[in-house]
Amino acid sequence: MISEKMKPFTSGSSAIRAMFEEGKRLATIYGKENVYDFSLGNPSVPAPSSVTEAIVDIAKNTDPCFLHGYTSNSGYEDVREALADTINKKYVTKFSLSNFILTTGAAAALNIIFRCILDNGDEVIAFAPFFGEYKNYVSLYDGKLVTVKPDYNTFMPDMDDFESKINEKTRAVIINSPNNPTGVIYPEETIIKISGIMDTAQKKYGKPIYLISDEPYRQLVYTGADVPFVTKYYDNSFVAYSYSKALSLPGERIGYVLVNNTIDGYDEMINALTVANRIMGFVNAPSLMQRVIGVCMDETADLEVYEKNRNRLYDMLTSLGFEMAMPDGAFYMFPKSLIEDDVEFCTAAKEFRLLLVPGSTFGTPGYFRIAYCVSPETIENSYESFKKLTLKYRGETK
Amino acid sequence: MISEKMKPFTSGSSAIRAMFEEGKRLATIYGKENVYDFSLGNPSVPAPSSVTEAIVDIAKNTDPCFLHGYTSNSGYEDVREALADTINKKYVTKFSLSNFILTTGAAAALNIIFRCILDNGDEVIAFAPFFGEYKNYVSLYDGKLVTVKPDYNTFMPDMDDFESKINEKTRAVIINSPNNPTGVIYPEETIIKISGIMDTAQKKYGKPIYLISDEPYRQLVYTGADVPFVTKYYDNSFVAYSYSKALSLPGERIGYVLVNNTIDGYDEMINALTVANRIMGFVNAPSLMQRVIGVCMDETADLEVYEKNRNRLYDMLTSLGFEMAMPDGAFYMFPKSLIEDDVEFCTAAKEFRLLLVPGSTFGTPGYFRIAYCVSPETIENSYESFKKLTLKYRGETK
Repeated sequence: MISEKMKPFTSGSSAIRAMFEEGKRLATIYGKENVYDFSLGNPSVPAPSSVTEAIVDIAKNTDPCFLHGYTSNSGYEDVREALADTINKKYVTKFSLSNFILTTGAAAALNIIFRCILDNGDEVIAFAPFFGEYKNYVSLYDGKLVTVKPDYNTFMPDMDDFESKINEKTRAVIINSPNNPTGVIYPEETIIKISGIMDTAQKKYGKPIYLISDEPYRQLVYTGADVPFVTKYYDNSFVAYSYSKALSLPGERIGYVLVNNTIDGYDEMINALTVANRIMGFVNAPSLMQRVIGVCMDETADLEVYEKNRNRLYDMLTSLGFEMAMPDGAFYMFPKSLIEDDVEFCTAAKEFRLLLVPGSTFGTPGYFRIAYCVSPETIENSYESFKKLTLKYRGETK
Repeated sequence: MISEKMKPFTSGSSAIRAMFEEGKRLATIYGKENVYDFSLGNPSVPAPSSVTEAIVDIAKNTDPCFLHGYTSNSGYEDVREALADTINKKYVTKFSLSNFILTTGAAAALNIIFRCILDNGDEVIAFAPFFGEYKNYVSLYDGKLVTVKPDYNTFMPDMDDFESKINEKTRAVIINSPNNPTGVIYPEETIIKISGIMDTAQKKYGKPIYLISDEPYRQLVYTGADVPFVTKYYDNSFVAYSYSKALSLPGERIGYVLVNNTIDGYDEMINALTVANRIMGFVNAPSLMQRVIGVCMDETADLEVYEKNRNRLYDMLTSLGFEMAMPDGAFYMFPKSLIEDDVEFCTAAKEFRLLLVPGSTFGTPGYFRIAYCVSPETIENSYESFKKLTLKYRGETK
């Protein structure tokens, strides 16, 4: 009874979300501590206490009509101004409040961008492996996601494949660094190469091609590596940001779109994004959380836990014979599946109460994702299960 | 540089939002107290103190990882269960948690419904005057809004016109009672007539036609009038609800979709709405606000203020010669414009620092909307401006 247009989205559904629901089901049977749920990027580190303090302080000391009232569709002016200041200081940029539209998280940010730039049949290029929702986000606006294969040793984009895929239908390129699901960070030279190829294509086809940088993991970096700020390298660029991971607030739905000063048709684009935010039903980012961000935008949750998890899990899995790139950021690992069929592999893992997500969800079969935003105990306790899983397929570990 | 598909939405934009921004501009020039801003349905009554207490208590005493983490895409199970209980008690219905999907307000609720039911060219019928955003919401999914004229004395739907407009392309009918912008409430006989016409059409065309009841003003009733619960009258029905007005939380974006038990393809519809909520970028309704609703769902802000405003404004405007139906609910009045061109009339009103919204925004030219969710002082102080506006066009009052 649902629309024909909606059907493809429901049949695909989300393997990640299905695992999340499966995890809750298994937890009621075996007890939460006996299920090793590595399925969802739901932060295990609490929001910093300053967030709780800000919520309490703001709720107690702000006129409720102002605090809970409609804001401008792009968000409170003072919060956006503070945001511009903090970004300018940190990244040596020149933004003002008008560059920012506060959104209900990065998912909303990407949806309003795609709504504003895509016409039927337009192509958006993503570099595999990529967050599976990109395909849905693009398809919702009748666009087509085109994928570029990685160098499987480094999980950097294969630039030859990228050059062969960019064409007159390409409307945008989306990157995600630190990356979900591999944890790799694109260094400056990669951003310069991507920008160069895009710029050549813009000139060749005589039309803008937008670079969209999806950056929910910008603060989650373990190696001191620099995450280049894309607006410095490419004029027609957007940043989609979320506080979900840095401040451990994924359920609150708060983030922003940053529109580069040098984007073609800046005013028209800002206006379109603002209208889209309204009519698509977001209206404005949740108002109390906007004000909390106004106070806490420079803070992060205690991200060291993730680094410790990363190190322990990497040691544990490589000792069992798993192969993977060491992640520099985010809280994901993307090891090679022990059998070719990654879906079958992840289904088998459930026998041992291990919840993993198949690589095919990220456009990269033969691998699987581990979200290590879990407690250190979950990692320790999962060892026996990973060992059993290895023995099932290899008869030995390593 | 924006997409061709987005252009019609930005050129139309929102007259209501434009007035809201204009109000903020005038306030900086003349002082907030000298601008009579009747443009936006932004509640003037604070959220009840129990909301502030709930925010503080929940923030202080809940594990932040749980409180601010992702919830199921349809919302916390316990909150939806409490919601089902409270609705069942109040309206003698038989819903369970699975009937409810928590959303970021009614705007999101309507967007996910339209996404899930509309295919290209499908028609949605609305009864004029109607909330102008309906046209956008329907157009976003390539549907067409078809409008039915009212009886101009009562602002009830003209049933003959409705019967002439419903056809094989009709996919849904949307009602909004208490109504924005007229404040009228559809009595049971009107709901029965609408349902009857829809049922006949369903049989004639052999396909479901959905009734969508947009109910953000359900609690705002001044006459003791009953607002019929549509699921009792029509099988293929949805309710879109928001706490924006009842709890004065419009900026927080919290509401729900209620899917009737008897809807065709219930499971498929629930699944589709849940997926739509995720992929369209809402992901889940803001998590802290979900929990606040869990505690405060049976409360309301002090709505008596609106009734007093209604009475005072009605007396004031009728004494000046304005003609209108006495509103029974919501916080809007919809008087006749003093000249045929309602846009010109509202533009002229700005001279006197009166911010009003043209009736054409609601598909009903020749009228204008007053949102009386303002302070009683604003109403008193606006008298001279309304008088000057009347004198401008009539040379006399009454």
